[in-house]
Amino acid sequence: MEHSTYKKWSAEFIGTFWLTLGGCGSAVLAAAFPGVGIGLLGVSLAFGLTVVTGAYALGPISGGHFNPAVSIGLAAAGRFKASQLAGYIVSQVLGAIAAAGILYLIATGKPGADIGGFATNGYGEHSPGKYGLYAAALCEVVMTAVFLIVILGSTAKRAAGGFAGMAIGLCLTLIHLISIPVTNTSVNPARSTGPALFGPSHAVSELWLFWVAPIVGAIIGAVIYRTVLSNGNDD
Amino acid sequence: MEHSTYKKWSAEFIGTFWLTLGGCGSAVLAAAFPGVGIGLLGVSLAFGLTVVTGAYALGPISGGHFNPAVSIGLAAAGRFKASQLAGYIVSQVLGAIAAAGILYLIATGKPGADIGGFATNGYGEHSPGKYGLYAAALCEVVMTAVFLIVILGSTAKRAAGGFAGMAIGLCLTLIHLISIPVTNTSVNPARSTGPALFGPSHAVSELWLFWVAPIVGAIIGAVIYRTVLSNGNDD
Amino acid sequence: MEHSTYKKWSAEFIGTFWLTLGGCGSAVLAAAFPGVGIGLLGVSLAFGLTVVTGAYALGPISGGHFNPAVSIGLAAAGRFKASQLAGYIVSQVLGAIAAAGILYLIATGKPGADIGGFATNGYGEHSPGKYGLYAAALCEVVMTAVFLIVILGSTAKRAAGGFAGMAIGLCLTLIHLISIPVTNTSVNPARSTGPALFGPSHAVSELWLFWVAPIVGAIIGAVIYRTVLSNGNDD
Amino acid sequence: MEHSTYKKWSAEFIGTFWLTLGGCGSAVLAAAFPGVGIGLLGVSLAFGLTVVTGAYALGPISGGHFNPAVSIGLAAAGRFKASQLAGYIVSQVLGAIAAAGILYLIATGKPGADIGGFATNGYGEHSPGKYGLYAAALCEVVMTAVFLIVILGSTAKRAAGGFAGMAIGLCLTLIHLISIPVTNTSVNPARSTGPALFGPSHAVSELWLFWVAPIVGAIIGAVIYRTVLSNGNDD
Repeated sequence: MEHSTYKKWSAEFIGTFWLTLGGCGSAVLAAAFPGVGIGLLGVSLAFGLTVVTGAYALGPISGGHFNPAVSIGLAAAGRFKASQLAGYIVSQVLGAIAAAGILYLIATGKPGADIGGFATNGYGEHSPGKYGLYAAALCEVVMTAVFLIVILGSTAKRAAGGFAGMAIGLCLTLIHLISIPVTNTSVNPARSTGPALFGPSHAVSELWLFWVAPIVGAIIGAVIYRTVLSNGNDD
Repeated sequence: MEHSTYKKWSAEFIGTFWLTLGGCGSAVLAAAFPGVGIGLLGVSLAFGLTVVTGAYALGPISGGHFNPAVSIGLAAAGRFKASQLAGYIVSQVLGAIAAAGILYLIATGKPGADIGGFATNGYGEHSPGKYGLYAAALCEVVMTAVFLIVILGSTAKRAAGGFAGMAIGLCLTLIHLISIPVTNTSVNPARSTGPALFGPSHAVSELWLFWVAPIVGAIIGAVIYRTVLSNGNDD
Repeated sequence: MEHSTYKKWSAEFIGTFWLTLGGCGSAVLAAAFPGVGIGLLGVSLAFGLTVVTGAYALGPISGGHFNPAVSIGLAAAGRFKASQLAGYIVSQVLGAIAAAGILYLIATGKPGADIGGFATNGYGEHSPGKYGLYAAALCEVVMTAVFLIVILGSTAKRAAGGFAGMAIGLCLTLIHLISIPVTNTSVNPARSTGPALFGPSHAVSELWLFWVAPIVGAIIGAVIYRTVLSNGNDD
Repeated sequence: MEHSTYKKWSAEFIGTFWLTLGGCGSAVLAAAFPGVGIGLLGVSLAFGLTVVTGAYALGPISGGHFNPAVSIGLAAAGRFKASQLAGYIVSQVLGAIAAAGILYLIATGKPGADIGGFATNGYGEHSPGKYGLYAAALCEVVMTAVFLIVILGSTAKRAAGGFAGMAIGLCLTLIHLISIPVTNTSVNPARSTGPALFGPSHAVSELWLFWVAPIVGAIIGAVIYRTVLSNGNDD
């Protein structure tokens, strides 16, 4: 019996909550811990493992998107009903906001707490490596496009059963290993939105890019997959 | 033929021994090794790999809990018989104490040895990042709640066969990547109890939190799973 | 229905694009990021994950070579038609060049950008650790030979189904963990060619080694596999 | 058709060659590379990945021991014929020696090369953290005992199919994350023997411990598995 729509929304809420809490939490709390901090490598691993764990635990319920750009890309590729997009995206964004709120409570629960950039995404002055708007946009578009190709390919019928959760989660780790210095890595508008509401004010004013670029990239990835990779009967 | 109760207890003893020896051992012996130490990232990986290895090696015998909070959460979710809780929890705590003893022997087997905090858990002054009681409690509750959701979801009948050990172990890695700075990460009362008996005196006086918070979190996770995720016939 | 030749070429183009963008991108953008850089460990992981993700997503289409030396080694082992070599290798090299171009655009998209060595391969003065030609050649030959043995063994009929993508990708991670200091690690002529076109001028003049050594190594690996490991009916 | 004895020996030679070249090579060449070195975490990962890759590629041929202590422990547990021990152990030791020779050639192929400890194992003065003989012996015995339990459990008939290679390889990573500071980690007499022949002179005089302790530990692990874990019909 398929899960009810309500349970799918719950799974997307919890999965995106976990993605945002785990990924941004590791960045805010542990990345620069003196002497033994986990660095960008640890943050990259954390983001990926939120998806690995969420995919195996929640994937059978909702499909395990946890990301509005993924939902939109899957719809563009004909793998997800467009009529379900609104419910999924609202659930994802609410989950990310809830995670950012919990993380804010934890991160400020010490004397002299300083949340810094609060793991928000940005470009130009607010890019970790000061990359400009065009580099940031290009990077987010390309990363999300390949992400969708990996998702579509590894969940196709011909792919090795069961491994999609590993491949997709580790793809998110890889994306972060490349692009944290450029934009702090979004590829996920929900993950960008949650922390922006609690972080420094510029995060909200730059948030538009982290909705536009991942969604454009996701659609490009879906189109590439459909046109030059899929042979039509392997999906 | 199912394994005898005695063999299940042995598996839980050995698995929790390994979790505590591997996780706390990597922290005490290797985390801050001069110049090439493994840091919090290495410790996080070590904790997770104790569960990955224990799950595949011992999981078929006992279910591979290695954690009183997990056993209680599984019982709350109807996946484990409450009548077996006492035997499992005693086995887990004894395994963790044995591991802490072995680790103490190794760690003190060098001239001028200093066991430091001995990988004990704490809050306030004894939190690695000086996080207070409320932040510590919130963090442990939330981490354990999601841990149980991942355990329950990835071991459900509909989940991809065989991958639960990877998902659950890597979830423990992820939890450590986020929360070592806050409480040194427990989410496991047995893991907290073993080192506390050999470490600095405050560890025992703060031990109550690392029984209460993980157990409360585990029950919350089980309730969330049963009410908003499970559809009843996928367990 | 098997995929068309054109779709196989597309898969090899995209997979090698991703290998080069992900591996070299992590090196150029994130390896030495101040304070929290991912280091050679992160770059090693990134290279491996490009293959893990590409193998599960694109492997069912083209076989997932993403490397001229691999295609040649597979042909030498009788697992790939020699008549398809030219199309595969051209696709791989074009994919790597496209990736290097995109990476160049991103990396230069900041004030005062300096692309440094641009993740090119080299020996002698241009080896990261100043290893000479003979050490560099020996290292590349041995690494690629074992790489082919791992590929041939883990994709044999008797091997555990589905795990080849993990084994092969993580083998590339392992190869980088060993040999980045020696040659910056090639084992893949396409990966060496792309960045060389955009990087410092010596990279092109030393490029011959990173075509010759990996191909020689791949053929040696294929011969070893066929003569002392395979029993003929497990392929 | 089962592989011939000669091909099994070849697989053990190559697998132990790879374990020693990969693990010790990463330590000698990359662990302390200035600024971006892979550290003990990278070396731990490298050792484990040699086994992950060897297990999937060569395991179907020889069983994938790559370690005299493992072969002896498997024989003690009734999973391997004692009559094959001599051939396996000789193959493993020769493979490790060949690897150390190749590594020596690469490591000395640069101006002013200094091979340092050459990844040899030691205790007391030659322990990385100066741990004494008793701590070193205890550590090696306990690590190898658990290693055998993980091997025996994850390859039992009831275990999840295909995952043993991941569990066993990642167990070796975990063992290194804990114990490199104590003995530089052996748990494998072949891996200790190869580098000792090329490294500093004390390595040979202390080599006895890294034959005795892993073998004692492996037998203890096998006995524990047989007596308190196995129920007899799951092997």
